[in-house]
Amino acid sequence: MDNLLSAERVEAIIHAGLPEAEAIRVRVESVGNGQASIRIPFSPRMLRPGERVSGPTLFAAIDTAMYAVVLAHIGEKPMAVTSDINLHFLRACAPRDIIAEARILKLGKRLAVMSVSVGAVDEPPAVHATGSYSLPPD
Amino acid sequence: MDNLLSAERVEAIIHAGLPEAEAIRVRVESVGNGQASIRIPFSPRMLRPGERVSGPTLFAAIDTAMYAVVLAHIGEKPMAVTSDINLHFLRACAPRDIIAEARILKLGKRLAVMSVSVGAVDEPPAVHATGSYSLPPD
Amino acid sequence: MDNLLSAERVEAIIHAGLPEAEAIRVRVESVGNGQASIRIPFSPRMLRPGERVSGPTLFAAIDTAMYAVVLAHIGEKPMAVTSDINLHFLRACAPRDIIAEARILKLGKRLAVMSVSVGAVDEPPAVHATGSYSLPPD
Amino acid sequence: MDNLLSAERVEAIIHAGLPEAEAIRVRVESVGNGQASIRIPFSPRMLRPGERVSGPTLFAAIDTAMYAVVLAHIGEKPMAVTSDINLHFLRACAPRDIIAEARILKLGKRLAVMSVSVGAVDEPPAVHATGSYSLPPD
Repeated sequence: MDNLLSAERVEAIIHAGLPEAEAIRVRVESVGNGQASIRIPFSPRMLRPGERVSGPTLFAAIDTAMYAVVLAHIGEKPMAVTSDINLHFLRACAPRDIIAEARILKLGKRLAVMSVSVGAVDEPPAVHATGSYSLPPD
Repeated sequence: MDNLLSAERVEAIIHAGLPEAEAIRVRVESVGNGQASIRIPFSPRMLRPGERVSGPTLFAAIDTAMYAVVLAHIGEKPMAVTSDINLHFLRACAPRDIIAEARILKLGKRLAVMSVSVGAVDEPPAVHATGSYSLPPD
Repeated sequence: MDNLLSAERVEAIIHAGLPEAEAIRVRVESVGNGQASIRIPFSPRMLRPGERVSGPTLFAAIDTAMYAVVLAHIGEKPMAVTSDINLHFLRACAPRDIIAEARILKLGKRLAVMSVSVGAVDEPPAVHATGSYSLPPD
Repeated sequence: MDNLLSAERVEAIIHAGLPEAEAIRVRVESVGNGQASIRIPFSPRMLRPGERVSGPTLFAAIDTAMYAVVLAHIGEKPMAVTSDINLHFLRACAPRDIIAEARILKLGKRLAVMSVSVGAVDEPPAVHATGSYSLPPD
């Protein structure tokens, strides 16, 4: 894992590949050995009634964090695709910046497995997720 | 299950409760014994690069279909909350209207369990999902 | 899918590969286009207190049904391995023969995705499961 | 959480409630604030061909660890039931004692959510699981 991409490089690849308003705003906060952390700055568009962050926004943060950690570790190859994601909803998510921290549980030849904690900054996680990416053959 | 809400009633409740642009456009196509089907009309905002429908859009369709089928069967109570969702991604989703069909696997006192198939209209499903809602006490 | 293995052949491969008392008793009831059904004859060893079938027994039935349906469709290759399984528990399982019906949702080059319904014969399903197998490269 | 049951008490309740050979051998190694750890001593009955621990054995360890941590924190009430479990298989499990460590992610009134790491003692985890228990009303 000594060829880890930098947080700046991963962020640039995400912005180049996903040219949507939401994606452009994603910040890759850190990349480390087996982990990556992203932030989505708060926007009123994220909200559902009751002033909490919507499920689709949390899902987007989870999928982006998984993408970031895989990308950082396998580099810029024709890309892995999401195979499955399991989400457990723990509590409502306050209307603040969203932080998603992904951790690699397995990085095999054919499959990467990750867990992700996501929620409002400085709050306990709103969702715990586990998922896998199917990796391209060499 | 003889007190099933109509598709029109379920659609009106969803529109009243979720006053976002996306939600307003959701149509509840059918409600039946143990099932409900929703449609999200196509919009370019749904797309990711490669002209396929994004994961967060498919997630939103799944969650809305689960909400619709639960609402139709338990009626307008202080609402159930999503407990968990498991998604398996089967294939890319073409840029068309999205159809999500939810089926109740269990409707207990404390928990409802549903499966959902979601994808582009007239195409095989892009995602198969299973999830549960925690139900309010009477 | 015209090279489908027969139910008898799949059963023989399972018995040869898993020489445990429980596995030996597994019967492959049917194999069809995209589906397979297995039966585990009742044994008192399957039970938990309360005279219901235990979780590990239901898990074994689910995994065996997924294995059977994959085997029937891809044939006797150096084998696929279970990647993930998601189980939703729907109701207690009566002390009778166990039937597990697996259905292929996707059969790709790298990944097979299946859903499984499992429960006591002639009863509604006790568990709904979805899972995937990582497939060997050719 | 100051009324935490002790590891000895949780082990005694498990043995009383699940009088199977396998369950009797389960040891509750520790109980702490939001966590519990169990051990299943090695037995050749746990093995599959290839000398690795079987899926049903790992599933049993996961479910037992989730039960132990819930029991320790909510005490001896008419019991919670497993609602869902998601398993990601990370690597083969060596033929040794099995350790399963459960951690509470949420302890609500109606639902408890836990993550579990399980594998051979002194080895990296073979399976990462997340699941929930539906809790009895007071």
